[in-house]
Amino acid sequence: MLFPYHSLRIFAENIFLKIGFSQENAQLATKVLLSADLRGIDSHGIARLSGYVRLWTAKRLNATPNLQITYETPSTATLDADAAVGLVSAPYAMQIAINKAKNCGTGWVAVKNSNHFGIAGYHALLAAENNMIGIAMTNASAIVAPTFSIDKLLGTNPIAVAIPALSEPTFVADFATTTAANGKFELLERENKDAPLGWLQDAQGNPTTDVQTRKKGGALLPLGSDREHGSHKGYCLGAIVDIFTGVFSGANYAKWVPPFVSYLPLPENPVGEGIGHFFGAIRVDAFRPAEEFLAHMDTWIRTFRNAKAVEGKKVIIPGDPEREAEIIRMAQGIPLMEDVVKDLRDLGEKFGVEFL
Amino acid sequence: MLFPYHSLRIFAENIFLKIGFSQENAQLATKVLLSADLRGIDSHGIARLSGYVRLWTAKRLNATPNLQITYETPSTATLDADAAVGLVSAPYAMQIAINKAKNCGTGWVAVKNSNHFGIAGYHALLAAENNMIGIAMTNASAIVAPTFSIDKLLGTNPIAVAIPALSEPTFVADFATTTAANGKFELLERENKDAPLGWLQDAQGNPTTDVQTRKKGGALLPLGSDREHGSHKGYCLGAIVDIFTGVFSGANYAKWVPPFVSYLPLPENPVGEGIGHFFGAIRVDAFRPAEEFLAHMDTWIRTFRNAKAVEGKKVIIPGDPEREAEIIRMAQGIPLMEDVVKDLRDLGEKFGVEFL
Repeated sequence: MLFPYHSLRIFAENIFLKIGFSQENAQLATKVLLSADLRGIDSHGIARLSGYVRLWTAKRLNATPNLQITYETPSTATLDADAAVGLVSAPYAMQIAINKAKNCGTGWVAVKNSNHFGIAGYHALLAAENNMIGIAMTNASAIVAPTFSIDKLLGTNPIAVAIPALSEPTFVADFATTTAANGKFELLERENKDAPLGWLQDAQGNPTTDVQTRKKGGALLPLGSDREHGSHKGYCLGAIVDIFTGVFSGANYAKWVPPFVSYLPLPENPVGEGIGHFFGAIRVDAFRPAEEFLAHMDTWIRTFRNAKAVEGKKVIIPGDPEREAEIIRMAQGIPLMEDVVKDLRDLGEKFGVEFL
Repeated sequence: MLFPYHSLRIFAENIFLKIGFSQENAQLATKVLLSADLRGIDSHGIARLSGYVRLWTAKRLNATPNLQITYETPSTATLDADAAVGLVSAPYAMQIAINKAKNCGTGWVAVKNSNHFGIAGYHALLAAENNMIGIAMTNASAIVAPTFSIDKLLGTNPIAVAIPALSEPTFVADFATTTAANGKFELLERENKDAPLGWLQDAQGNPTTDVQTRKKGGALLPLGSDREHGSHKGYCLGAIVDIFTGVFSGANYAKWVPPFVSYLPLPENPVGEGIGHFFGAIRVDAFRPAEEFLAHMDTWIRTFRNAKAVEGKKVIIPGDPEREAEIIRMAQGIPLMEDVVKDLRDLGEKFGVEFL
């Protein structure tokens, strides 16, 4: 079923208002949430709305947070998100990074005591809109096993980097540091399909194609799949994200990162507060005049876009598919699966907000 | 054959002096070069010495460079390396980043007009020695095909991140953004072995195990190997490194990055000067008090080191294997293959420097 963006926007805003968000934060959280649906990353969009509400019900998410800078240097700051939803704390933190970059050339903000922030790419793009390179990362609850590990110690820990150009659209890389993002598994599960080898291991650390292994002690694998194909590099990437987001800020890290789903208990003996994010903003004229930088980005993008490709394919510029999805979905509507629609109807009934 | 570190050091220093390096730069270049041999990354160590000399002979490497900051903001700078060897320009650039971080919390330096800089990990570790997190990247000549591409547009473009701890040794991730580093292929070639599937594609973009394909239009593959296993993420990583090092600084990027080997011609119509590097330094007290940060890094490292592992294995902390190699090789000597020894003897004869 296709739903107009603006109908979904009004619905989500009203839900956020019902649980006590300010008008401003309800609008912001909705905009960030729905940017995932628009950009084709359905797993991170309105399908998660009821999950956020359940976190609020479980008193893990503060609807009226007091966001405060608790530590800073000229180019850095740490933000205590006061258990805010990341959909609100992340754009706030990126704005601090942007302001720091105006003065210093670059700005870097670590966030603690936060919750899930939607898609990393949205936040990185905020910097690009200000003529800056944007970087966004978050940690997440541990469902990934480092190379040779049976224990799950890392989240899917995504990294996004947005780099503006002159005439070409902004380069936006946004990817989980695992072989496959979590949303891919949800899709396979719904379709009752196996995963490719290289995405999962079972509770003994052996390769498996069984998507159910995730509920039986199995784990997602870092980018690279196995040692021979460089999974130690994917493990390094996931680790760097965990340290930059969790250890820098004073949030939880490793196995202590709180789960998104409210039915799972919070890890015992936490090493920090909430989940952690990390943001960077770099002025496009931090290293050379802006017009030079932007013109060379055009050349870079065109060189890759026009590369000779294997038959029937083309070389993709990171961000192109999401931008194309955004245009189509804004015009034609956002497709939602039946169970998501049912979930949203139930949510609407509970709060007295009409769906559609 | 095993060679004492100090003998190799004196030999390499004398070679650099013979081609006109200052005493200081000869010592520095040698220290950086041999750190690769000590840390077990043989492909980037003294085995490359004659390659650097050939670059000098071909007038692509300036033995007496005038390193100059050409552009800066409070937290950033661009360094024109004046065709220096990266073994010299990279530590110089990292020192600028460290100085900037002292004032601003973080420091970021892009380098243009440089040459190969040895192992990225060495430069990242310089920051760690100053109680900072260190980041180092470089681009390199294009031998890697982006996802779906037949054209080779990226180098192996390594990333290194060094993060100090309190009692635990420094975390040091240092990896090529390809499935396998170039040195692995040189080894396979020497042993006349095939590569695993997922490391290479042939001139038509098909998977191959033939190491010789690299000389017949084939390419290395980005981390992830193929689209199904996330090669688009490895492509993104390689692209980010290329842009941060090449486009930020004003160096060459993509197919224009000059080759390390002097027998290959320089690419036509260059888009910048030389190859590019990028360095970052972040004070350990940029986001929270140093003692808190360092103590939590200890907890992070111990949590991963003590994870339950698959039988016969252990979970490795990035940097541990290299640190262990360094202790052993400093004590017992550095193993060099026969053809490397012959190459060094020839080099010594040519310049009247005794080898061993």
